[in-house]
This record gives sequence, C-alpha cells and structure tokens, in this order.
Amino acid sequence: MSKEMTTKDGKPFDRTNLESLMKRRLFYTPAFDIYGGVSGLYDYGPPGCALTNAIVDIWRKHFVLKENMLEVDCTMLTPYEVLKTSGHVDKFADWMCKDPKTGEIFRADHLVEEVLEARLKGDKEARGIKVEEEKEDPKKKKKKVGKVAAVKLEDAVVQEYEEILAKIDNYNGEELGLLMKKYDIKNPATNGELEPPVAFNLMFQTTIGPSSNLPGYLRPETAQGQFLNFAKLLEFNQQSMPFASASIGKSFRNEISPRAGLLRVREFLMAEIEHFVDPEGGKKHPRFEEVKDVELELLNREIQLAGKTHVETTKIGKAVETGLVDNETLGYFLARIQLFLLRIGADPKKIRFRQHMANEMAHYAADCWDAELLTSYGWIECVGCADRSAYDLSVHMKKTGAQLVVREARKEPLKIEEWQVELDKKKFGPKFKKDGKAVEAAIEALSQDLREKLSLDLEKEGKITVEVKGVGDGQVEVPKELIAIEKRTRIENVREYIPNVIEPSFGIGRIVYSICEHNYWTRENDEARGVLSFPPTVAPTKVLIVPLSSHSDFKPFVRQVSDKLADIGVSSRVDDSGASIGKRYSRNDELGTPLGITIDFQSVKDNTFTLRDRDSTKQVRASLDEICKVISSLVDGSKQWSDVASRLPAFEGQEVD
Amino acid sequence: MSKEMTTKDGKPFDRTNLESLMKRRLFYTPAFDIYGGVSGLYDYGPPGCALTNAIVDIWRKHFVLKENMLEVDCTMLTPYEVLKTSGHVDKFADWMCKDPKTGEIFRADHLVEEVLEARLKGDKEARGIKVEEEKEDPKKKKKKVGKVAAVKLEDAVVQEYEEILAKIDNYNGEELGLLMKKYDIKNPATNGELEPPVAFNLMFQTTIGPSSNLPGYLRPETAQGQFLNFAKLLEFNQQSMPFASASIGKSFRNEISPRAGLLRVREFLMAEIEHFVDPEGGKKHPRFEEVKDVELELLNREIQLAGKTHVETTKIGKAVETGLVDNETLGYFLARIQLFLLRIGADPKKIRFRQHMANEMAHYAADCWDAELLTSYGWIECVGCADRSAYDLSVHMKKTGAQLVVREARKEPLKIEEWQVELDKKKFGPKFKKDGKAVEAAIEALSQDLREKLSLDLEKEGKITVEVKGVGDGQVEVPKELIAIEKRTRIENVREYIPNVIEPSFGIGRIVYSICEHNYWTRENDEARGVLSFPPTVAPTKVLIVPLSSHSDFKPFVRQVSDKLADIGVSSRVDDSGASIGKRYSRNDELGTPLGITIDFQSVKDNTFTLRDRDSTKQVRASLDEICKVISSLVDGSKQWSDVASRLPAFEGQEVD
Repeated sequence: MSKEMTTKDGKPFDRTNLESLMKRRLFYTPAFDIYGGVSGLYDYGPPGCALTNAIVDIWRKHFVLKENMLEVDCTMLTPYEVLKTSGHVDKFADWMCKDPKTGEIFRADHLVEEVLEARLKGDKEARGIKVEEEKEDPKKKKKKVGKVAAVKLEDAVVQEYEEILAKIDNYNGEELGLLMKKYDIKNPATNGELEPPVAFNLMFQTTIGPSSNLPGYLRPETAQGQFLNFAKLLEFNQQSMPFASASIGKSFRNEISPRAGLLRVREFLMAEIEHFVDPEGGKKHPRFEEVKDVELELLNREIQLAGKTHVETTKIGKAVETGLVDNETLGYFLARIQLFLLRIGADPKKIRFRQHMANEMAHYAADCWDAELLTSYGWIECVGCADRSAYDLSVHMKKTGAQLVVREARKEPLKIEEWQVELDKKKFGPKFKKDGKAVEAAIEALSQDLREKLSLDLEKEGKITVEVKGVGDGQVEVPKELIAIEKRTRIENVREYIPNVIEPSFGIGRIVYSICEHNYWTRENDEARGVLSFPPTVAPTKVLIVPLSSHSDFKPFVRQVSDKLADIGVSSRVDDSGASIGKRYSRNDELGTPLGITIDFQSVKDNTFTLRDRDSTKQVRASLDEICKVISSLVDGSKQWSDVASRLPAFEGQEVD
Repeated sequence: MSKEMTTKDGKPFDRTNLESLMKRRLFYTPAFDIYGGVSGLYDYGPPGCALTNAIVDIWRKHFVLKENMLEVDCTMLTPYEVLKTSGHVDKFADWMCKDPKTGEIFRADHLVEEVLEARLKGDKEARGIKVEEEKEDPKKKKKKVGKVAAVKLEDAVVQEYEEILAKIDNYNGEELGLLMKKYDIKNPATNGELEPPVAFNLMFQTTIGPSSNLPGYLRPETAQGQFLNFAKLLEFNQQSMPFASASIGKSFRNEISPRAGLLRVREFLMAEIEHFVDPEGGKKHPRFEEVKDVELELLNREIQLAGKTHVETTKIGKAVETGLVDNETLGYFLARIQLFLLRIGADPKKIRFRQHMANEMAHYAADCWDAELLTSYGWIECVGCADRSAYDLSVHMKKTGAQLVVREARKEPLKIEEWQVELDKKKFGPKFKKDGKAVEAAIEALSQDLREKLSLDLEKEGKITVEVKGVGDGQVEVPKELIAIEKRTRIENVREYIPNVIEPSFGIGRIVYSICEHNYWTRENDEARGVLSFPPTVAPTKVLIVPLSSHSDFKPFVRQVSDKLADIGVSSRVDDSGASIGKRYSRNDELGTPLGITIDFQSVKDNTFTLRDRDSTKQVRASLDEICKVISSLVDGSKQWSDVASRLPAFEGQEVD
C-alpha cells in the first residue's frame, strides 16, 4: 500500500476515526467486553446487525432468487469422519511455535514476517530513509514485535529478507523452522528460544453426545453440508443439471492469534454457493450471455508473475474467449459477484479480481479467483471463487459408497468393445460345491487385461487358472466346459459423471467492514462529522423521525409515522431529544440513515411532512402516504433521490444539514 | 392426548404421511445421512429453509421493526467464566445413568418414564383393557423399552406409577436413583444393573485459541450476549427505558438421547427478545392498550392445580386486571406472541398459554408462561415467555463490577435520613502512618446499624473501636478528635436500579414443524394428495410456473415470468416436465406453493396468463403486470385471494385442480 487511501470525495481516509465511530455507535464491539474480551470474537450491535441483514437479504435476492438456487441450512456441528474425509482434519492448519519458558504461542509465519519487517525498518532508519507512518499497519493491534534498533543490514541480506516476505504465505512448518534458525528469530519480548513450528489444526473440537466416542468439530465452511446432500438436491431439482445450492451461516476458525479487527475473526458469517456443473463441454453457463459485457479488473497468474498489481478492465465475455478466465461458469460468477458488490455500495474503483497462485490455494481447489476490495488494510479477499473440481464429491463417495453422481440419457448411445465372460452356472455347483459362489465372484471381478490374457489360455490349454482367496491353495482351475471369454460390443445408453463444483464463497463480515470504509466521508464544513453514505437498500435504519421539539402536539404524529413505516416494512428511529434538528441529523449521518422525516407545526395543521436526503441534505414536502410511497421505492432500490426531487416540491423552510 | 388429532378440515391427521412428505420433499433430512447420520442433528432442505427464513422475516417485522427493538448478533462461542456466572455450568444439566457392562447411556428420567409406562400398559392388557395405538407416542423413534409382558399390577402400584409419571420432570438425580432402586429399573435390553444417575452438562465444550487455558462452550441460549451488552445498548437507546434487545441465531444443547424428530435437537434456531423494564411501577407497557382485547387461552398455576387442561379464552386486559397474568409487560408479550403465531398460519384452536409450575422453571426464571401449540406429539412448548427478574444482570455485575444499571433523574428528590461519618483526614496520617488509608476505608464501609451503635460509643467513651484487617491485632481505636458520626438528611436526585427482564424466547424449529402439522390436509378426492396450506406470506415458494407443454414457443415466456418475479422479490419454481398440469400442481401442493401461473397458447397470443389459487383451485386471467401486482399484495399479506377473485375475471378454460 504505497498510495494514500482516499474517501469517495477524494479526501484522505482516516481509519482511526471510522473505527472509533463504528465502536461508539455500536456497529460492533468486542464480545464479552465486560469480562475482558476474547480476541477474535466480536458482537454486532444494532446498526452492524441491520447492515449485515440487509446485505444478506440482497445477496439472497441477487443470487438465490434470481437463479432458483436451492438454499439449505446444514448443521455447524460436524462429526470427525466427515472432516477427515474432506481433508480438513489433516490439512486445515497453521504453524505455531511455543516458547517453552513463558508458555507463549506464536503463529510462525506472522512472527517471521514481523521480525524481518522490523529489521528492514531499522535498516532504513540507519540509512536515513524516511519510514512510513505506523497507522496503516494491519497488524497494529496484535503486533508482538516492537521497534528494533536502527541497524544497517548488508545489501544482500535486505534482498533476502524482501524475497522471503514476498512469499511468506508459501512456507511449510519445516521451512519456517529453518528460516527462524537461520535468521535467529526468537521470542521478541524475552529473546527466549522457541520450539520448532508444529501444525495447529484451526477447527474447534468438541464431543457430540454423552459418551466421548463421537468427536466432532465446528464446521470451517458451510460447503460440506451441501456436498453431503448432493444426491437429494439433484433429486429435488428433478435430476436437472446444472444447478446450484446455497447456504448462509456461521463458520469457525480457531485462529492462533487473531488480528486486524473484523477482518480475521474466529466466528464469522459466510454465504456460499456450490454450483454443480458437467465437467465436459467447457463448463458453459446458461445465463452467461446476460453478463458478457460486464467489465472487470482481472489479475490472472501470468499478469501477477509479470509483476503487475493493476490492469485495465476487460469485458468478461472477452476474458473467457481469450482464456484469461478459464470458462463461462467461472466468468459468469465473477461478473455476478462484481454486480452484487456494486449493488451494496462498494466503490467501483476499489474492486479487483485476483487469481490465486498455484501454491496459495486451499487443498481442495483446482483454481481460485478472489474478489478483493481495497481498504486501508490493503486489498482484502472478500469473496473467493474456487473451482473445487470433483474433489469433495469424489472423496465422500469413495468413503461412504453413496452415489454422488449424475446419470443422464446419452443422445447417442455409446458403443464399448470389451471382453465379456459367460459362465455355465449349472455346472459350477457340481464341480466346486460350496466354493462355487467364490469362484464365480473371482471371475466376474477380473480386469479387462486379465480377461484378454485368459481368453488365450482358454484357447490354448482348454482351461484357465484363477486366483480365488480361501479356496484350496488359492489357485483354481476352470475348464472350458464351464466358461467362455469373448470380445463383444456393449451399448451404453446412460452417461454417469461426478459433477464439478464452482464455489463463490462470501465472507460477509469482511464485506460489511469494507463497505463501511468505502462509504465513509466527512462533511465539508466539519471534519468531525462523519457520514456513512450507504445506499438506502443497505442502510441499517432507513428513516430518522424528528419532531421539531418535544412539544406534546407532535407525539401522536411521531407514533403515526413510526407505525406506518413499520407496516410497510421500513425501519425507523425516533429522535425526540432536545438537541437541535441539525445535531440530530448529524448523529444519524454516523449511522448512515439515508432519509429523515421532520414533523413541524405545518404537519400538525395539514398532515404534511418533509423528507430529507442525507447526502444532499435537500428536502421535499408531501403527505404521509406520498412520502411512504417514495420511501418504499428508494428502499427497494427502484428509485433514486434525483427522481424524488424532480417530482415533489422542494422544501427550504428550515436549515437542517 | 386422548382426543384424536384432526386437520383444519376436520379429518384425522396422519403424522406418518406428513413426515414422509416432509422428508421426501426435503423440508428436512437427517444431517450426515450418507455417513449414517448423527442423532439430534438435521439439515433443512430448500423448502424447510425457505419456510424458516419466511417465518424469521415475519418475526423481525412483527417484533423488531414494530417496536424498534435493538437487534444484535453475538458470538456462539462463549468463554467458561460467563456461563459459570450465569449458572449454566452448574445447573444446565440432565441426569444420566451408565450401564458399566455395555457402556450404554440412558437419560434417567426418560428411562423411568418409559419403563413405568410399559408396565402400566402390560397391566392394562392383563386386565383386558384396550391399549391405545403406538403411533401417537412422541418417543416412538428413540424408545429404548420394548413391549413388556401382560402382567397385572396391584391397584396401589398402578396409582404410585401414575403419580410418578405426572411429576416425572421434577425429580433430581438422587430421587431418580431411588426410584430406579425401588422399582427395579435396569437396562431394558440386557437387564443389567445401571450406575446411579450423574449430572451431565448439556453444553458443548471446546477450547478457544491454541493454548488449552481458555475453555469455552457453545451458547445454550442467545440471551447472555444481550445481557453482557446491556450498558452499551442502553447508551445506544439514549438512556431511555423501557427498551428491548433481540437476537436471532443458533443455540446448542448436547442432548443425552435426542428424540421426537425436529422437536428435540442438538442445534437449533432461536429468536429471543430481552425486554428491559423498571421493576417498580407495576411493569407497565406503553403499547398494552393496543392488545388489551386480544383473547387468549390462559392456564395459570392455580387452574392447573385444579386439574384443568383447557379453559375458556380471556381478554388479556381482563387477565392482567384480575391478576391471572402478573403484569402488563408479560401480558403484552403473550398477546403479541399469539398474534405472531396466527400471522404465520397457526391454527387458532391449537394455541394455548400455560404457566410453569414453580418446580419446572429454569434456574434464572422468576415466572414463565409457555405458548404451546397442539400437535400429534401433544402440546408442545414453542415459545417461552419468562420473567428473569434482575437475575442475570445482577450476577454479571457482581462478577465483573460493570455497571449494568439504569440511572434516572428523580421527579421528586428523595430524602434519606442516614448516619454520616466525617473524618478529619489531616490527623489520620500522623496518627496511623501507613495504615491511614486502610482505617479510613474500613470506617467508610461501616453499615448504617454499626454507625448508629458507634455514635453512642463515641458519645459515651470519646472513641470508637473499628475492625481493620491487617492492621495491628485487627482492632483499631479512633479518638473523637478524628471522627464525627451524625444523623443527617441526604438528598438523592438520581435513582439507580437494575432492570428486570421479560424474555419471549422462540424455538423456531419447533414452530416450523408445528405450522406444518397445522396446515396439512389432503384433497377430498385423493387421500394421497397432501396439501400444505401455508399462508402466501410464509410459503417456501410463492409461485409455480407451468407452461402448458414443453413446446419451445413457451420458453421465452417462462424466462420472462420467472425474471419478473425475481425482480419483485418473489420466489418461483418452474415445472416444464412432461407431466399433466394437474399432476404438476399436485406436486407443488406438497410444497405448499400457494399460487400458480399457467402459460398457454393464449399467453403467446396476447401476453396474458392465468393465476391459480392453491386452496380453492380457482383461476383468474390477466396481464403479467396485473398478475405481478396481485402476487405482491398476496405475498406481503395485504390482500387475500377473495379480494383478487372479486376483482379479476375468472378463468375456467382448463381443469387443473
């Protein structure tokens, strides 16, 4: 992050102010605060919760409703066996080092990163180079490494450090251990020796039921429940392919040492889609045509290897055509993800799509693109769009024997040449007695290659010798009177395949935080007056109701307006405190409330009210019915304030900006 | 359950048919089914998930939006300390017995219950009394006790058994152990001796973070997070009382041996309200007036002790007036709960409110009323409405020192006569040296009674003797030169109190299941054709789109209708299979789809469509815009089908019932 972050109106962005606003106005708060808190756990207060709900609601309309996805809600508690099969028990881990003296635990990659960064900084100081401000550092809160002395490093060492930092995400435990030894990295507080890195599984473990023999975990993703129900979902979808399932729910990740506020937490809301598609035929998508002209900033692997961090936007249709993006289905979702992010208020200049490098992908992924949002913490992965190929369905099918496959009638029957065996079963009983069944089974199980070989034996020697475990010495002779082996053609009318899965996976908490950064600015005339310019569809509270004063004449009108808004499903908040109207609006700027209704003496006389727009501070005046109609259309996104302002009479009676 | 359950149209209700429909159509399914399943864990498939979402959405509008409740979303992971303080670590447990030979574990109360019930049944058989059918038994699936021999019991024993069964929920572990000894209750399968009952805590335990020193649990209720944030929420509400917080989320209960399908599960969705109210002044509610004429069936403690299981309905206004229900706030929520249940489609004849007996309440409750829905499993507690008094806020405040209190200016200042102590602090140092502060603190901490007594000592003896731990021998003399104790009047302008909490707590899974039972019936002409008559507001899918045939002329119309519905936020499902239109509607009766749009040749000509009502099977015909407008108003609950039928022309072209 070399360039300074700016707000929508081009002023410098100040994270400290935003985070202080968000905590003060209870968007979120550390969980169990009065007990001292638990790192990596946050509660969402009323505005944060409403904002999240609104984003989830739009997500459901944008994806689930629009494409008739099959939404499911699966349990978070997951037995060991399932996550063992999926690979999470073995591979969902980070590397940690323990200080045997203090008992302190460090995440190995973070420690190496912080120590080398601190040394590079000391080096710069020693060279008299100006060092950047601390406040843009994502690890500020949890940083374990303090300032180090200004020591000049050899040029070669600087280069080594920089190379290590560039690929810090790619080292395994052993490699991290070697780095720590080579560069003498110890407990920064005590300079104590650390134990070598060991794998720490990131799943929360528990026991299901009263006896301790059913270990389980809290799910690390919502995906597994969708995979396990694949056969039932396909049936529900009347065997029709492609289709998608979707799920919205909490997942868990027992971070070794959480940092960066809402961006890396131990319990988080995910919204995941599993789109099941035929791996043959280029993974086409039936609605690709609708999005082909959407323009995206796409950084694929080659572009990143060429050292670029920014490229011109490309139409997704063209990107798929040229192979920049692998296939239509992947391309379709990248475009739909961008449309969603724009719909909820992301800044179009702060969205990009970055392909994972081969070594940074999760164990199940064949390919992965992240939708990243630019924040003061840098580019943040908010949506992963992975091609999980047939990985998950295959491993669960292998483990359980469940048929997680699609069967479809072939348009053209498939002709298969193969070696077929024919047995004269009547003669098997008399010859082999009780072993008859075992011999039959052993013959049926013979591979094509063996059958071909045995057909020659049969021709030459008039008998074959077959291995049958547990019968005699294990070698059984079958004479040609009992068996024929011939090459024949079989016609297959049904095709069977394991679908591939394209998985757009949304971290809702990260999106919520990023949207707050993208929509934060301060009024021209007052730097302390923060405004969150959420679109009305997303805003936590839609309408602020302000009576001119606490005069009792206004009370029935306050109730009338508030009830009417609740009836049409619009959230509102009354502020009948003694503060000035301007002050009351200003307080609600911080909550991102897009609309305000003022109740004044004119309202008491003729039952008309003024409606105010947060961003322009302009007002119009109309009857309550008219105002409610306008509010509905702004809140459902079908109208903009400009439409309203051009239709209803402006009101300039009071200064309330 | 003596009387036979009936459907809305008065026919016998068949649970087996409904449960088979719900599993077949994927309302729910055992979780991890392909791995053999885990008892007490279920996944919701598309219709169950959509039904749940719709009910949650209405809940949010009915409660949160209508009363400006402060919705929060707190973490499920909860550290030990919090649940130790709340009492859950010690008291949230069931009693279990282990068979030391087989390792099998039984829930003690369930085992006693099942064994005694089986013996009573055997007795009836021996007496030649007809025994009820098995299928109404809620424990059918998990029953561990088989049929027992027809043995006649003594009349006195029969009476003893019946008395025990009537209060089976109220025995503690020791008492259950005694019952098992007295009545020779053993492992029913092996007749092996069981170990005495031990407490089994029902919370799932885990460890937060990499070191094992932060044990935690999955929350057993959403309430604690709301209590811990009380001070911040009060601040957010601009210090105004009363107010309510609300939360919707999963909670967990590690049942010893789950049974009764969706009614007793290990992971479940709750919606909880914590309404904070001043304990003084009769717990009035500002909106009570609006509900006072709502009629409820109210079984309070006295009525139950009188042996009644059914009473006439009473207006809630009258019930509060006569003390049948304790206060306005409790009464307000009982009425609002009933209105909610009716709004989502509960059968008004199958709702009642039952007050808990003193010995069946949770450890935190001062009073509790359950909203119960009648199902084939009997009356099921679906909503608890507890008065938790100041229990939770008090214990957390005591533990953490956080000020979980309300401070408000008194209208009339309060005059308090009290014994005040005045110290001449300048003389304390010279006299007591380093112990000065400790002596001061001990004096300030003296109770009013002690101060009164000491004022007499001071007068008589010119000095007082005070206990001060750690100073000299613990007895310190203070001469009158250093201290004065006098009775004075203090004026208190601020009142400080810990609010009481009224908690309506909804088990969404139980409500979902009960609503399915209440809305299930079969068509007159075909018993096999199950219908779920959900109100359009609640139905999982709102509209079925059926082209007359799979003719390609219809395809663009299908897409047009489907997209248009998605745009107005209405869920639809297309059935373009080859089945007859009647068959396709019938399949969607099972999903409870209330509306159907048929696309026929007339549609291709003039872009009009027919709209069909599920329950009456009547149809109207209109343009797509007109039909969408009608659908919107049916789905948001502002119109009924009768309104539509009276306004739009009926269509009787095809028979599609």
